[in-house]
Amino acid sequence: MKFSLDKSYEILERTPTVLRSLLNGLHGDWIMNNEGPETFSPYDVVGHLIHVEKTEWRDRTMMILEHGTAKSFVPFDRFAQFEESKGKSLATLLDEFEELRVANLTWLKSLQLTESDFDKQGSHPSLGQVTLRQLLSTWVVHDLTHIAQTTRVMAKQYKTEIGPWIEFFRIMNF
Amino acid sequence: MKFSLDKSYEILERTPTVLRSLLNGLHGDWIMNNEGPETFSPYDVVGHLIHVEKTEWRDRTMMILEHGTAKSFVPFDRFAQFEESKGKSLATLLDEFEELRVANLTWLKSLQLTESDFDKQGSHPSLGQVTLRQLLSTWVVHDLTHIAQTTRVMAKQYKTEIGPWIEFFRIMNF
Repeated sequence: MKFSLDKSYEILERTPTVLRSLLNGLHGDWIMNNEGPETFSPYDVVGHLIHVEKTEWRDRTMMILEHGTAKSFVPFDRFAQFEESKGKSLATLLDEFEELRVANLTWLKSLQLTESDFDKQGSHPSLGQVTLRQLLSTWVVHDLTHIAQTTRVMAKQYKTEIGPWIEFFRIMNF
Repeated sequence: MKFSLDKSYEILERTPTVLRSLLNGLHGDWIMNNEGPETFSPYDVVGHLIHVEKTEWRDRTMMILEHGTAKSFVPFDRFAQFEESKGKSLATLLDEFEELRVANLTWLKSLQLTESDFDKQGSHPSLGQVTLRQLLSTWVVHDLTHIAQTTRVMAKQYKTEIGPWIEFFRIMNF
């Protein structure tokens, strides 16, 4: 499948609703547990998505369009949400993420990007040269893989409870 | 996390809505592609969930409650949906899954299961002795891991498009 801005919007626009339908109102056992040290709980994932939404996609898109490869992207902090989410309920985070996403997509659409823009290059601090097409594709993949991670983390909370059925769930050992 | 019927309902009740918010209205490229030979597309996953909903959870619960380990469960057909879904739109499948799930949960609640029921045993054709607790936990895990699979399959459609970012997405090689 080739990158398409329209097909990318289809995913990016629905992620806040998907996360809300998946997580809102769940018992804390489902949303606050993780996969072990230095891993994310579903609650952490939403905080992480908020942080990325504030700091990454928009800034990096602008960096490519305005500076090309002349200036490197600001490196990303994977653990910022542990501080930023403190004291906030999951419902608050879900609202916050939705507002940021709606604003970012409105902004992105206002750019009226064309095919030739997607080939423009930027400079990633560790990956080197990247294109706007790759950045926007990564935004989509980032959403989808974090939903995958969230449901995997939730499933793992019953890892012991499923007994011998564990054999059929390769994903539980990922 | 220990098995809890109430916490299990929290997941089982929302899965049809989660799948709908995730998949409904998407371009065919997102829903009809898979991960390679003998793997499921998101469309196949919904068909699979329908087949399991019709044949597995309710029948196996009844088998445990009525026959214990005296009779083995009917073996499961992992590929039945390729035939059963033929000619149906994804929207139709999503509706069908929701109806079946609502009916199954209404039925499950009508059983008024107690703690002592969860220890009752049945006989799985390949796994041997299993308990009702393990069966019901597996129902929940099965939902969550198929949502994880669905979003992973979707993410993989952009595997080439993200370029060097692939390095940060371990899940894309799963």
